[in-house]
Amino acid sequence: MGNRSVSTTVNRSVSWCKSKQELISRCPHQPGLDDLLAASLERRAAYYAVRLLPEAGDRRSAREQILHVFEQLESQAGAPEFKGCAYLAVQIEVNDHSHPASRVAHRVKGNLTAFFRAEAERGGASDPELLARQLMVVFDGAGARAGIGANRLTGLVAPTVA
Amino acid sequence: MGNRSVSTTVNRSVSWCKSKQELISRCPHQPGLDDLLAASLERRAAYYAVRLLPEAGDRRSAREQILHVFEQLESQAGAPEFKGCAYLAVQIEVNDHSHPASRVAHRVKGNLTAFFRAEAERGGASDPELLARQLMVVFDGAGARAGIGANRLTGLVAPTVA
Repeated sequence: MGNRSVSTTVNRSVSWCKSKQELISRCPHQPGLDDLLAASLERRAAYYAVRLLPEAGDRRSAREQILHVFEQLESQAGAPEFKGCAYLAVQIEVNDHSHPASRVAHRVKGNLTAFFRAEAERGGASDPELLARQLMVVFDGAGARAGIGANRLTGLVAPTVA
Repeated sequence: MGNRSVSTTVNRSVSWCKSKQELISRCPHQPGLDDLLAASLERRAAYYAVRLLPEAGDRRSAREQILHVFEQLESQAGAPEFKGCAYLAVQIEVNDHSHPASRVAHRVKGNLTAFFRAEAERGGASDPELLARQLMVVFDGAGARAGIGANRLTGLVAPTVA
């Protein structure tokens, strides 16, 4: 993809970071827009996990820990500035699996899928892999529809996941 | 949004139409990129409905007619050139409710929601509005994840919707 359409996403993403300088310092060579975008997504990954996943040592049931992620999503989506999952947006906009930003997004969302799969397994789901894939469909669908203002999530996600 | 990032989407969308000339002829005045994009989405709306919805006079149960939409999605998503729902992509990329293309997308997806709501009502769902919103979350989530190559839909959608 050309750098034209990355530029909008870069501008949106770079605002997450304290400074563009911080991003540039993470790049091994003189970075282009593609590298900056990837670095900004990489930078946000830890924050993304902290805001969504239960804390280490959380002793609630697998079902409650899975619901926790959707409660976090619902709460984040309630903010007026919510624009949907940045990782999904980048994958849709970039539309190229080999793009560095797309690879970061793929890995970050893979970690979330792995969390769902592990909890589904712990909770005794008959097909943890299928359940994890279904939960990701609901997660990305709910986030995308809230991000574009098509659905408010209040009262929507809990009965869907339950 | 600037016209920079519209241009990628326009290029993708305009390829749906027989010719750019056809799109231009649908615009009331000398069209900009935003108008072209909106016209291309408008042009595709009838085709979109035909490919997804059951035919008029279909006598199957409400549940089967709802499943029909997801079977169509699964079948479309199996094509190597599938890139996800163009209407969702435009809404995410444009990220501006007042953009003409965004308004077309909002209306087209609203028609799909209305179809789900009507069938849910006919099928005796206890809360047709909620069910329609849930189905849209699954529809957009499944389409988006298949479009970015994160999930194959085979064997995924039917048990999620059932």
